[in-house]
Amino acid sequence: MDARLNESELVLLPLGGAGEIGMNFNAYGCGAPDDRRWIVVDCGVMFGRESATPGVDLILPDIRFLAEQHENVLAIVLTHAHEDHIGAIAQLWPLLRCPLYATPFTARLIENKLAEAGLAERVRVTIVPLGGRIAIGPFEIDFISITHSIPEPNALAIRTPFGVVVHTGDWKLDPDPLIGEVTDSESLRALGDDGALALVCDSTNALVAGESGSEGRVRTSLIDLIGTLTGRVAVTAFASNVARLESVGEAARAHGRSLALVGRSMNRVVEAARETGYLHDFPPLIDADEAAQLPPNRVLYLCTGSQGETRAALARIAAGEHPSVALGPGDTVIFSSRIIPGNDLAIFEVQNKLSALGVEVLTERDHFVHVSGHPCRDELAQMYRWVRPKVAVPVHGELRHMMEHARLARSLQVPQAIVLQNGQMLRLAPGRAEIVDETPSGRLHLDGKVLVEEGNGHARARGALGYAGFVAATIPLDGKGRVAGDPSLILEGIPDQVHGAIRAALEDVIKRHDSKRRDEDALKEQARLAMRRAAMAHWGKKPVTRVEVVWV
Amino acid sequence: MDARLNESELVLLPLGGAGEIGMNFNAYGCGAPDDRRWIVVDCGVMFGRESATPGVDLILPDIRFLAEQHENVLAIVLTHAHEDHIGAIAQLWPLLRCPLYATPFTARLIENKLAEAGLAERVRVTIVPLGGRIAIGPFEIDFISITHSIPEPNALAIRTPFGVVVHTGDWKLDPDPLIGEVTDSESLRALGDDGALALVCDSTNALVAGESGSEGRVRTSLIDLIGTLTGRVAVTAFASNVARLESVGEAARAHGRSLALVGRSMNRVVEAARETGYLHDFPPLIDADEAAQLPPNRVLYLCTGSQGETRAALARIAAGEHPSVALGPGDTVIFSSRIIPGNDLAIFEVQNKLSALGVEVLTERDHFVHVSGHPCRDELAQMYRWVRPKVAVPVHGELRHMMEHARLARSLQVPQAIVLQNGQMLRLAPGRAEIVDETPSGRLHLDGKVLVEEGNGHARARGALGYAGFVAATIPLDGKGRVAGDPSLILEGIPDQVHGAIRAALEDVIKRHDSKRRDEDALKEQARLAMRRAAMAHWGKKPVTRVEVVWV
Repeated sequence: MDARLNESELVLLPLGGAGEIGMNFNAYGCGAPDDRRWIVVDCGVMFGRESATPGVDLILPDIRFLAEQHENVLAIVLTHAHEDHIGAIAQLWPLLRCPLYATPFTARLIENKLAEAGLAERVRVTIVPLGGRIAIGPFEIDFISITHSIPEPNALAIRTPFGVVVHTGDWKLDPDPLIGEVTDSESLRALGDDGALALVCDSTNALVAGESGSEGRVRTSLIDLIGTLTGRVAVTAFASNVARLESVGEAARAHGRSLALVGRSMNRVVEAARETGYLHDFPPLIDADEAAQLPPNRVLYLCTGSQGETRAALARIAAGEHPSVALGPGDTVIFSSRIIPGNDLAIFEVQNKLSALGVEVLTERDHFVHVSGHPCRDELAQMYRWVRPKVAVPVHGELRHMMEHARLARSLQVPQAIVLQNGQMLRLAPGRAEIVDETPSGRLHLDGKVLVEEGNGHARARGALGYAGFVAATIPLDGKGRVAGDPSLILEGIPDQVHGAIRAALEDVIKRHDSKRRDEDALKEQARLAMRRAAMAHWGKKPVTRVEVVWV
Repeated sequence: MDARLNESELVLLPLGGAGEIGMNFNAYGCGAPDDRRWIVVDCGVMFGRESATPGVDLILPDIRFLAEQHENVLAIVLTHAHEDHIGAIAQLWPLLRCPLYATPFTARLIENKLAEAGLAERVRVTIVPLGGRIAIGPFEIDFISITHSIPEPNALAIRTPFGVVVHTGDWKLDPDPLIGEVTDSESLRALGDDGALALVCDSTNALVAGESGSEGRVRTSLIDLIGTLTGRVAVTAFASNVARLESVGEAARAHGRSLALVGRSMNRVVEAARETGYLHDFPPLIDADEAAQLPPNRVLYLCTGSQGETRAALARIAAGEHPSVALGPGDTVIFSSRIIPGNDLAIFEVQNKLSALGVEVLTERDHFVHVSGHPCRDELAQMYRWVRPKVAVPVHGELRHMMEHARLARSLQVPQAIVLQNGQMLRLAPGRAEIVDETPSGRLHLDGKVLVEEGNGHARARGALGYAGFVAATIPLDGKGRVAGDPSLILEGIPDQVHGAIRAALEDVIKRHDSKRRDEDALKEQARLAMRRAAMAHWGKKPVTRVEVVWV
């Protein structure tokens, strides 16, 4: 044992997902502080919101801390294929340039993503069999089958010189997941029997009592429900929930309906599932144009768009703008999904448009057509009884979820439960777990196709434009500092009633301009303030205002 | 009976609230089509959303159809004092200039509103006693006490030469409303016994099974819950729910805590309630600075901000920025409220900040601390059993709520159930009810202090600015059409990485400018397109782009 090993330690560093549901990115480091080897678990995105981050499609973790030592980052291990776990690979892999490890279905969807980004040739994706083990530097990792709302969810047992960390990924305890095995509780219990160091665990539903419920029961309920319907039926669901898609397929078969997939991601997931050995009993598919020729009670559509996404299939159907699918009186749309926070108004808009067409809308509020993929409190308690860790580290949650998760863990006699924020480095061993460093962290915005730091202000600047519009004035000055012509005044997003007052304010400043004081900056500032004051007086709001001078 | 009466009819014209929850505005007209007398029931607003209507605070109904015949609008009758029923009075009264009628508590809050708008002297507000009757032109209106989540909710029995219309306003059936009477079911049943023409009724909870529950049970539960807490407790609730405020007062008294109101609207409502005879048993209030001096278990705060409003008391407390209230570990915030659609992310942000302070957050998800003020399906069914109308007209709902309400009414054997959209005029009598006209309707935006039509595009233009920012270029040209100096280029909300490409595109156009072809518009359009193309190529988005020329 060399002296260095005395300084060696095992750390956990979340750079995403600690404080938000989404953008999961956790790094485990092993070694002395100045010589760590890292593995990354998951590499996900969050979606931008018009209200908070206007014009930003995707939000990614800022991983500069690891990028600066990318030669020590040995691998990215993916627990499952949801976007909040794999969605940032194409943007962030170039900063780390290490191999990826995933089970077959996950690997298949990652490969799609890499191909789209033109990275397929450069990135090595190692396919790990279900229940497999991989060794990466000081880490040995067992993939443990668990259940969630997508095929092949894995918990990871990360074996290190300091003990075993159980990293759950996203999970629930589904006694009847329909696709894949039930949770490998034997392995989890065995890890506990051997003494687990830490449990790093999903917090999404830590505020929800009881259990999340089973896909098997949703299948029965969906089949029964669709059996009561006589017109066309469209089911919208998360495309990645292959078990749910299969349930809709079963409902089609049970009631003599032909199944048509509508929306690109439905087709993409079904293709990936089939290529990796799932959906072998899926009924034959017809395309939506064919379906339109059939009697209404012979058709079942499976659509994208459960979150009200404007460009997805269901929104286009609701707007009467879908090229192949038209619904009307007597038809039914089933939202086999939940409302992701922030999407309620968009979803209700789609539902109202469907109502306007005479379509009946059924949701989880009124029928049993959905279950969550994340563990409620009874399931969390079960996991803690199996693993019995020394340290609980809640991840994958907003702060209120993680805090409640930590409280629950303490109530279950876990000796330490530590809530981290992104960028906080937790030493898991040796000794008591402790926060030992704060690393640079934050968010990157994928703004168009440009990656920018959240703090750089462009999204915020656009927020200000969205609130109060824009005034851009340009004043021509000659070599003697005299106004050499009429200024240009460009207004955008400002009510017509206010334009005159802004123009008058600009003209007034120009009229009073003293060319002897050749102070360009003073003129610009006077004009800016005068126009903002005029807008405030006549409108009650101050637009973003910029004034320039051109010298002629 | 003169010949004209043969052409006479009774019509209902919703100009707001049919298709949205909010902005309630219904007009009843009596007379021949070219000579109607109108009364208006309620005059409310909706709140703007940054995502849909950036920079718009309030949305109001466009009532030009009535404004053009304002001399025939005899009255505005207010059912109760919620903003979605009275909030547009200050802006819309000047278009109608007719007397207002309301019960004492509602009148008191309207008077506040008129005073703020400088209209107190001009507007006549007639105070109607509870259970009172007023006669206005061909209408005789009985105020019928009902229950809701504010003092003095009234249904209106509108007696006309064609029969009685029961207009419910907002309501529920609360057996124990705590403040005011229970629903006057005798009067409602008597209206049914005499034969009611129409029921114009709240649709908010038409999708929700069962009953809404009682304020009395919430009181018991709140008192019990607060009894289990040991630190400071803050309850946030809708200020207008005076019964709820009283319940919090009871909890303070029961557990030896002193009550402090935090937030302007709390103080305003409590004052109005006391002046109109409510809250006589409210405990003595202390101010928040005094409360800060007391031991934590002796304090109970009642705060505004249950919807996560950025400027309300609770958001400031959560941000650690409130001048008088500081909460921390051991303290508890109770959200005695629901999440209004569209507000979830703002509310969660406040809750996460409270969690970060170590404050425990309790909500209706985990404790019984709130009930809805609107009728669920069993209550709607009860109302239909009492009134037994010939025609059901669902109002106060999004389309999906109104459609489901109509379906429910038909299932209860109502002969006609008609879903209207704003601006559709329904002839209620004589003969079968029928849509007879489509009047101009729509929404007005209160944008700053300027009232603009929704369709005029300023909010939409700002949405485009919010998405992709702004480019404003000004090119100086001399009398010969030659470029006379460097152009000005103003960029806002665009990532720095893209600026160079946009500038280069502009310079390239200017370099290639042929002064012999003195076509100013062509130059501007070339520059505009070149800059948008450059942005698209380097950014993937096209900013709003404007180019002007100044002649020097």
